[in-house]
Amino acid sequence: MSGHMTPEEFRRYGKQVIDWIADYQQGIESYPVQARVRPGEVLAGLPEHPPERGEGFEGILADLDRVIMPGVTHWQHPGFFAYFPANASGPAILGDLLSAGLGVQGMLWATGPACTELETRVADWLAELLDLPGRFRGNGVIQDSASSACLVAILAALHRAGGGEAAREGITRRHTLYISSQTHSSLEKAARIAGIGSAGVRVVDVDPRTLAMDPAHLDALLSEDRAAGMLPVMVCATVGTTSTTAVDPVAAIGEVCRRHGVWLHVDAAYAGVAAVCPEMRWINDGLDGHADSYATDPHKWLLTNFDCSLLWTADRAPMIGALSILPEYLRNQATSSGEVIDYRDWQIPLGRRFRALKLWSVIRWYGAEGLREHIRTGVRLARDLASWIGADPGFELLDHHPFGLVCFRPRWEGLDDGEADEATLRLMERLNASGDLYLTHTKVGGRVLLRMAIGAPATGDRHVRAAWDRIREETDKGPAW
Amino acid sequence: MSGHMTPEEFRRYGKQVIDWIADYQQGIESYPVQARVRPGEVLAGLPEHPPERGEGFEGILADLDRVIMPGVTHWQHPGFFAYFPANASGPAILGDLLSAGLGVQGMLWATGPACTELETRVADWLAELLDLPGRFRGNGVIQDSASSACLVAILAALHRAGGGEAAREGITRRHTLYISSQTHSSLEKAARIAGIGSAGVRVVDVDPRTLAMDPAHLDALLSEDRAAGMLPVMVCATVGTTSTTAVDPVAAIGEVCRRHGVWLHVDAAYAGVAAVCPEMRWINDGLDGHADSYATDPHKWLLTNFDCSLLWTADRAPMIGALSILPEYLRNQATSSGEVIDYRDWQIPLGRRFRALKLWSVIRWYGAEGLREHIRTGVRLARDLASWIGADPGFELLDHHPFGLVCFRPRWEGLDDGEADEATLRLMERLNASGDLYLTHTKVGGRVLLRMAIGAPATGDRHVRAAWDRIREETDKGPAW
Repeated sequence: MSGHMTPEEFRRYGKQVIDWIADYQQGIESYPVQARVRPGEVLAGLPEHPPERGEGFEGILADLDRVIMPGVTHWQHPGFFAYFPANASGPAILGDLLSAGLGVQGMLWATGPACTELETRVADWLAELLDLPGRFRGNGVIQDSASSACLVAILAALHRAGGGEAAREGITRRHTLYISSQTHSSLEKAARIAGIGSAGVRVVDVDPRTLAMDPAHLDALLSEDRAAGMLPVMVCATVGTTSTTAVDPVAAIGEVCRRHGVWLHVDAAYAGVAAVCPEMRWINDGLDGHADSYATDPHKWLLTNFDCSLLWTADRAPMIGALSILPEYLRNQATSSGEVIDYRDWQIPLGRRFRALKLWSVIRWYGAEGLREHIRTGVRLARDLASWIGADPGFELLDHHPFGLVCFRPRWEGLDDGEADEATLRLMERLNASGDLYLTHTKVGGRVLLRMAIGAPATGDRHVRAAWDRIREETDKGPAW
Repeated sequence: MSGHMTPEEFRRYGKQVIDWIADYQQGIESYPVQARVRPGEVLAGLPEHPPERGEGFEGILADLDRVIMPGVTHWQHPGFFAYFPANASGPAILGDLLSAGLGVQGMLWATGPACTELETRVADWLAELLDLPGRFRGNGVIQDSASSACLVAILAALHRAGGGEAAREGITRRHTLYISSQTHSSLEKAARIAGIGSAGVRVVDVDPRTLAMDPAHLDALLSEDRAAGMLPVMVCATVGTTSTTAVDPVAAIGEVCRRHGVWLHVDAAYAGVAAVCPEMRWINDGLDGHADSYATDPHKWLLTNFDCSLLWTADRAPMIGALSILPEYLRNQATSSGEVIDYRDWQIPLGRRFRALKLWSVIRWYGAEGLREHIRTGVRLARDLASWIGADPGFELLDHHPFGLVCFRPRWEGLDDGEADEATLRLMERLNASGDLYLTHTKVGGRVLLRMAIGAPATGDRHVRAAWDRIREETDKGPAW
């Protein structure tokens, strides 16, 4: 059993795996949402040494059930409301399976013409579905995540700001990056990676009510920094922040960026895909004016298995200038002709999978109307939940919930702020430990809020209702820690 | 047809896709290795606009055959000898399928305990299979590629060299990175990304015969740069270069690094996995002494679908220091306890797939003896090919071919060097255009060499023999351009 799996064996085991996944989908509600294992428990269930002799696939599937599954947190469970959703869907899984079966490595056009051109096409399809500005057409690329997308944007912005100096000479002066307190942590991480450092990250004020970036403060910071000899590189505006789905005023921020000649990256990782629905297109406000790059993740709320993050740039040249190096062993006629895209120059790593297949499968299976239906279901369920919370005097609701995320907390009458926050965290831990649902938290104005993010494909009315019932029931037991 | 794919539909379509892949595996030799499409041809075959209504999966499979397949370059074809192999295998494809089916996002231990702990275990298994030094145990992580692994190593090295200054303040002085002319281009790309810039990259001399880095020149450069006020960050030694699989003297380089207090990263992306065979363990020489990080890619020659690159560090602290940022919405009890690994801090992006499943499937299916058999087959086939080339007076052979790569060129009697190089490139283009095999080239000492990299699981004696016959037959037609 130590040889290659034959096509006939692959047929047999492959169908077993397909059945295993279909059974998992059908029975997913029987699992606790969050894994109940203690640290080290899965590790202890796995042999310390690798096997000397190979074995059949049956043993792997048996150990999957016995050792691995108790340690799995079920992101596809209808009771998964933590973080943001990471939608898997049948067509995406099968698109990914085709990609694995073909085993294409599409670093260059020449190493996978279809891998490259299907990606260009589906990126354009998605741009059209979201009604993004025309200057992004032909300039989309699939990244592994919005973190990598923002790093690529920073590198392109650095290249443009310094006329290519950063790639040649490295960072030789103080550069600055502009975010708000609500911006995703991946922006600071990217600033560190790119050699700008945490000290180069400027935190722009937010409106304390909407948590949206203040363009006037951004303007002032940019002027100050320029006067102090800094080189401003990029501003990141967010459409749908991770903490509370706050929306920065992209049009006003873009106008500031235009005046200062600074790159504007719009991070719409979670919320951007909602623009498949015409009634949600307000989230694109300002993109028409001045946005140099835009990112949104079909792998969050648009039914495409992780990883599938889309990045568009208005001008691909600075990105390619920052990231392209051509050694002899990668030279080829197609690249020399200048007629093709080599996506290796649009990303951090060299190698790349045929990820376009899964997005293609998703868009074709669902069609525009199916994608809209999925987003509308999430928005409607969130609105229902918010209405129940708003109507309950025992709870406080964050009034902003245009997408699938609802933030709230019990009032805990009689407790001071610190005690109430502690009680809220303990409540969350009890709920999560119950296995019935999985929530995460954030802090706004120093106070703890629960986050309930709706959007898993399996989540329907009864799951949201049941979750709310459990939250009230557990809250009614009173604060405990 | 715009709704979610039901588990029953998934069962039906999933089995169709499994059959499609098994048929592809069985019929792969009927395809030309390299796609024959012209730039834009696949794009033109795809609808310009996304569909309004969804459709069944049959249409997707039909268009896969009709539009996509003519544009696929077949990396799994037994006649694929270009670049390095990117092995797919049945157990890896099914492990990846399970990962897609579970849809787990393992950024934190808490979001996927099994995703994290299986990864720790299989990284240890691989370290044991390769007989890596004990200090790497427990410190392995799966990256998407060796490019990302070397970027993470540089960031960790920067952190250690400057006591964390880079993360805080950014790059504020001149840093240097040491490679050779044979080092992979991803190192210079990583230096650019990290803010060191191309100007900070020092190219150490190589022995003109072996193409191995000269430790004495490295020593001299390090001393000069220190004296000139530079901060040396990292040396990258390569075991099995991309151009010709040259092997740097890791022990001697490590001794220089130790004396200068500089981080040593060993890039064994392609060749490192060969150490599953005891007779190949000489490639680990010097790792025992001083190597701070080590990377090798099971997705090249070890039967695990792209992406699966392993990175080990001797001390994880500087890497985590460089890459960890903890916003409120990612805080959780397990992270606070300090008892768990959060792999998000060991990589560039935040999100991550359950990639350990495919490596686990591969190691269990093949066992140590199956993995050894696969490597030995590649080494043996390369040795056979080299012996035929060496015995043919019309060809010149690069004498170094300890792995699966053989480099050679026709002698082209009567042509000067420039004409001969041109003739070699044209020969390669004719061979690649024939669809029978796919080769790439490199340059050594300014002269063009053909690279024939053996190692696809499907490649056997008859394919290597047939390729060599085709090369001779085409060469016998004489130079033409």
